[in-house]
Amino acid sequence: MRSKVAGYRRLGVAVVGAGYWGPNLVRNFCANPQCELLWVCDLRPARAQEVIGHRSSVRVTDALDTVLRDEDVEVVAVATPTHTHFAIAKAALLAGKHVLIEKPLAGSVADAEALIELADRQRRVLMCDHTYCYTPAVRRICSLIADGSLGSLQYLDSVRINLGLIQKDVDVFWDLAPHDLSILDFVLPPECRPLAVAAHGADPIGVGRACVGYLTLPLTGGGIAHLHVNWLSPTKIRTTIIGGSRRMLVWDDLNPSQRLSLYDRGVELTEGLSPEMQRSVLVSYRSGDMIAPALPEQEALQGVVAELVAAIGEERRPLTDGQSGLRVLRILDAASRSLRADGAPIALGGAELAVPTMAAAG
Amino acid sequence: MRSKVAGYRRLGVAVVGAGYWGPNLVRNFCANPQCELLWVCDLRPARAQEVIGHRSSVRVTDALDTVLRDEDVEVVAVATPTHTHFAIAKAALLAGKHVLIEKPLAGSVADAEALIELADRQRRVLMCDHTYCYTPAVRRICSLIADGSLGSLQYLDSVRINLGLIQKDVDVFWDLAPHDLSILDFVLPPECRPLAVAAHGADPIGVGRACVGYLTLPLTGGGIAHLHVNWLSPTKIRTTIIGGSRRMLVWDDLNPSQRLSLYDRGVELTEGLSPEMQRSVLVSYRSGDMIAPALPEQEALQGVVAELVAAIGEERRPLTDGQSGLRVLRILDAASRSLRADGAPIALGGAELAVPTMAAAG
Amino acid sequence: MRSKVAGYRRLGVAVVGAGYWGPNLVRNFCANPQCELLWVCDLRPARAQEVIGHRSSVRVTDALDTVLRDEDVEVVAVATPTHTHFAIAKAALLAGKHVLIEKPLAGSVADAEALIELADRQRRVLMCDHTYCYTPAVRRICSLIADGSLGSLQYLDSVRINLGLIQKDVDVFWDLAPHDLSILDFVLPPECRPLAVAAHGADPIGVGRACVGYLTLPLTGGGIAHLHVNWLSPTKIRTTIIGGSRRMLVWDDLNPSQRLSLYDRGVELTEGLSPEMQRSVLVSYRSGDMIAPALPEQEALQGVVAELVAAIGEERRPLTDGQSGLRVLRILDAASRSLRADGAPIALGGAELAVPTMAAAG
Amino acid sequence: MRSKVAGYRRLGVAVVGAGYWGPNLVRNFCANPQCELLWVCDLRPARAQEVIGHRSSVRVTDALDTVLRDEDVEVVAVATPTHTHFAIAKAALLAGKHVLIEKPLAGSVADAEALIELADRQRRVLMCDHTYCYTPAVRRICSLIADGSLGSLQYLDSVRINLGLIQKDVDVFWDLAPHDLSILDFVLPPECRPLAVAAHGADPIGVGRACVGYLTLPLTGGGIAHLHVNWLSPTKIRTTIIGGSRRMLVWDDLNPSQRLSLYDRGVELTEGLSPEMQRSVLVSYRSGDMIAPALPEQEALQGVVAELVAAIGEERRPLTDGQSGLRVLRILDAASRSLRADGAPIALGGAELAVPTMAAAG
Repeated sequence: MRSKVAGYRRLGVAVVGAGYWGPNLVRNFCANPQCELLWVCDLRPARAQEVIGHRSSVRVTDALDTVLRDEDVEVVAVATPTHTHFAIAKAALLAGKHVLIEKPLAGSVADAEALIELADRQRRVLMCDHTYCYTPAVRRICSLIADGSLGSLQYLDSVRINLGLIQKDVDVFWDLAPHDLSILDFVLPPECRPLAVAAHGADPIGVGRACVGYLTLPLTGGGIAHLHVNWLSPTKIRTTIIGGSRRMLVWDDLNPSQRLSLYDRGVELTEGLSPEMQRSVLVSYRSGDMIAPALPEQEALQGVVAELVAAIGEERRPLTDGQSGLRVLRILDAASRSLRADGAPIALGGAELAVPTMAAAG
Repeated sequence: MRSKVAGYRRLGVAVVGAGYWGPNLVRNFCANPQCELLWVCDLRPARAQEVIGHRSSVRVTDALDTVLRDEDVEVVAVATPTHTHFAIAKAALLAGKHVLIEKPLAGSVADAEALIELADRQRRVLMCDHTYCYTPAVRRICSLIADGSLGSLQYLDSVRINLGLIQKDVDVFWDLAPHDLSILDFVLPPECRPLAVAAHGADPIGVGRACVGYLTLPLTGGGIAHLHVNWLSPTKIRTTIIGGSRRMLVWDDLNPSQRLSLYDRGVELTEGLSPEMQRSVLVSYRSGDMIAPALPEQEALQGVVAELVAAIGEERRPLTDGQSGLRVLRILDAASRSLRADGAPIALGGAELAVPTMAAAG
Repeated sequence: MRSKVAGYRRLGVAVVGAGYWGPNLVRNFCANPQCELLWVCDLRPARAQEVIGHRSSVRVTDALDTVLRDEDVEVVAVATPTHTHFAIAKAALLAGKHVLIEKPLAGSVADAEALIELADRQRRVLMCDHTYCYTPAVRRICSLIADGSLGSLQYLDSVRINLGLIQKDVDVFWDLAPHDLSILDFVLPPECRPLAVAAHGADPIGVGRACVGYLTLPLTGGGIAHLHVNWLSPTKIRTTIIGGSRRMLVWDDLNPSQRLSLYDRGVELTEGLSPEMQRSVLVSYRSGDMIAPALPEQEALQGVVAELVAAIGEERRPLTDGQSGLRVLRILDAASRSLRADGAPIALGGAELAVPTMAAAG
Repeated sequence: MRSKVAGYRRLGVAVVGAGYWGPNLVRNFCANPQCELLWVCDLRPARAQEVIGHRSSVRVTDALDTVLRDEDVEVVAVATPTHTHFAIAKAALLAGKHVLIEKPLAGSVADAEALIELADRQRRVLMCDHTYCYTPAVRRICSLIADGSLGSLQYLDSVRINLGLIQKDVDVFWDLAPHDLSILDFVLPPECRPLAVAAHGADPIGVGRACVGYLTLPLTGGGIAHLHVNWLSPTKIRTTIIGGSRRMLVWDDLNPSQRLSLYDRGVELTEGLSPEMQRSVLVSYRSGDMIAPALPEQEALQGVVAELVAAIGEERRPLTDGQSGLRVLRILDAASRSLRADGAPIALGGAELAVPTMAAAG
């Protein structure tokens, strides 16, 4: 029997997958007073036990069925390898559970579409754990774009590199780019969405898949987004630069004392007559102060769990719903096709332009 | 009459162009005891006078002919806008002068080829002022690659961004990439040369040419080089990361106390039998010390002038000769074609693979 | 009943104090397979319960007596306010428990001496939780000094500043300097120990005790140690510079990618005849490479717990024993006297020179 | 004969001393259109010639008398070793010249007082080259203090360390601290002036004078200033932190892209009744945004020369007059006495409290 706190029921939660990310889900579901963690499910029950500790009464199993048959479980959080997402999430939705799922949402666009449809039919919440979208920094970036502080977007340049673990089943695009693509999807306004993607990669160590990769995404409106992902970098860099017509910003996620730097800098154009050319563009430069806004220190996953709980309670879609996961997946899918075509740009469908603005999230 | 010092004649020098870069040439030719600056030539003689100062006896003129007719002038250093390089250098070579020329060597591949041929015929030195190649940092990088310290090259990632002056006649590729391409040309070993180039750019401010640009160059041997050049960045970054199979390095040109960081890090592969897959690749990681080598502090242009003087004296090609300028120009030319083709990769001819190795320069 | 693992008994542990530091002790005792956490004791049992979580079977109490009467408890870890250390540790020792105690060891030199004597009489381990001494960085510093890599020590300059919590009962010296003094005590070789201490402080906000403070400690051999501790700094800095005759190092504890930088720099003297003075000192400078050694990433408290377990098992004194805590306390006590005397230096007794060298710890 | 420009006479200038700093004076006097450099005087005429270059018509001499007899010389700028300042400046003043003099103003307080008196009698400008006071950063700091942006000053902590040249005739205090003391003198408001100074130093390499030094200066109003100067540091640091009741700032002179960081952070006190103590102080913390103000890039010595020209033209005292040099000297002198007294604090006379506020300089 689940306990009740202050008149409301706690949501019963099961975490499936006790690998790299699962322990973070366990910790954050335990910390949320509206949730009650009931199960940790992993093919290696000893690993699951280790994650919850030896003196805990949370139950452990290697049988997903057992979890899904437990009527007290209302939420299933899936942190297993990508190729298993579809089967587990489908089973959970069919069992009437709400589902939180690690990125990428599924292994294919078709699977992701099927999950979204199933969740709609079952009237259950399907949420993508786009964790970064719930960091104070990304929330602030989102509101700075939405309220016009940056002006119109010129470019986004993101670097996420490290001497990272070389994955056995996916290339560096599928491993690292989902972070940046989910952020892009979250912060880009409707008038400035990706039109196409070109992917360039290299496998200089002969591991059979790209270890160094670059994605270029022209945006509606003339801007451009660019991602550098790399498993072979000697230093860890996680920096995004966003150029806007009014202000520019740098997000350095590894600098806790100054994650965001907002520059009152830019270039302004006036058409006019210049001596050299009959009709020319006059350029002026603005180099003003920089502001590093104070940001609260809070763990992003707390925000993920809170949004999940709120979406369930309010019977609405979460901010990072299945559609956002699907849009990320479509870009990854197009990137793979571009890579096979030596970097030829692959157009993205119109669907991603029709999404409701994320601006309200900031 | 030129003076003689310790039994050798000083080389008589004329600097043509007293704009942004000319003053640096003036200062460095004045500082070299084997050179004697005789003329500064600029269409604006007042500007030329300002550059040499009011109490100097160096002569000033706006007439190139006057300079070229002066038999004491043996070297003409050209620091004028790119589209004038060909005519000035051609006239100087025809007048029997040695020529040092700013990058890019000329406005077109054909012009560059013509200058190289003319210099050969005239038996005069034609040198490109690829200044960065003469910095202590790039010389060290060159020798670290040449002596095998880095192992085989995996990737080079270069970022050169700033809130820079938007040029009237060239895009950001032609303005900034020559720096990085000349460095690439200098440090890459013969077995690891660019095969093609793909260019992606954006003009988000409507200035009529790319202000943000990315170049991707697959290399022979499976590696990749990538350049980010940007006139619209709020912060100034000049960083190059080079991944090698034995070591990796980061060159941060804006950090005078630690320009080079050499990491004993990497990934090693062994083919073998792993539990999960019958025949698999086993990956091991190495994360050792980092060394920041002590580098001498010296102005790169001093090295340029010294190499020019030595090449003239020894009647040999300088390290950064016309061919190196031509190779850079070919990549820029291909990049422009790729840009017009929406980023489709453009193959580079085989010529650039036949160059003599630059390894001896380190 | 305590469980047995692989033939050896687990040590039963009680943590007293569930405030700021207690939860870290709880987590690390839980993580050590040779320990079994039995009790968390705090005057606020609800806080203690929160620390261990709602599904744990670790017991909670506000009665120290209950804990001390439990024969399964062999170790008491004390993380309460300083003025309570003496009474709790004394009771625990009298009850036959081993004691781990937060720094500073006690509120007065006399109390510390009494605890040391009692522990000796009771044949129980009395260990100071000088956590920093168990970080990979400090262990490396210790061995670099012990093996002569730094040469003879010239100075140690430590800065530990932040917009920190202003303590109600102690000044900034007693709050922050114990960290640096415990590190000093740990790394300084016998021939280079503090001779005296001068303390300068300020209370510019009128809170009744020093919020900004400086300690100067002349060392035997002519060197000097200096500490800056500050509750009113806008930025967080935790940096120690150590000058040695052979090498110099910088420890930046807030830079996880480069905590230690070891410089092959220095000044060398030769006595000789110089033109200007009959008998003069000739100075030469060495500016070589910098090495940032790779350090393991591991939590220092794991090392504290491991050392405690080992000392108990081997019936020996731990590396950071009561004497080391006493030496730190003597300096703090002298600093308070210096502060009251407007910064006049207070000599330290000879006792601290007689300590066994810590060099073997590196 | 001096030339005239646009109706006003240029000031004839002689620079005495062509060592480390002299060339900077030469360059900046040449660049100022209201000055005309006539002489460079050095005991080594070849060195003087090298400084002005081989094609210049500026005259060179090793005879100070020759310079002082030249009626076209109105200004003598002295950049010689400190112990020669008095004799050269006295001769120049007696010859009716205005004098700009490197810091420290003279070798003793008495000599400085004599120079000030002589300049007054001769009605000539006596200016100290407190270069840092003319940097955009220090000017901004000055105005931020003067306009109340920082609130009341709590502390100033300055670090100026490097592997620096060990001077033959002065210790590290006299070599490096004049920079910081001149800045302190410039920015401190009248209600917050040094009351005393305590100096701690060490000579760990046996060179016969302090190579590592710390100065502590209690301020009227309860604040404190502290300086760390060091010739033996492996890294170069030039950072000043200033704590104020309203805002705090960090000046990092080695970070050209963010020299000043202004933090909206602080601690606020309210007296009240707290549960624990009958009458207690309640502390609240403010952690707001950080602003890095845009600063112009301009060479400080240009400002020195401009102020000198303006003071001569307007027949007024310059911002950094003889008195400011004297105040710096008094602190250095007291520091030397404190050093000899093992760090005992030496009171400063009341004179330095009576100085006209520098606030208007910001």
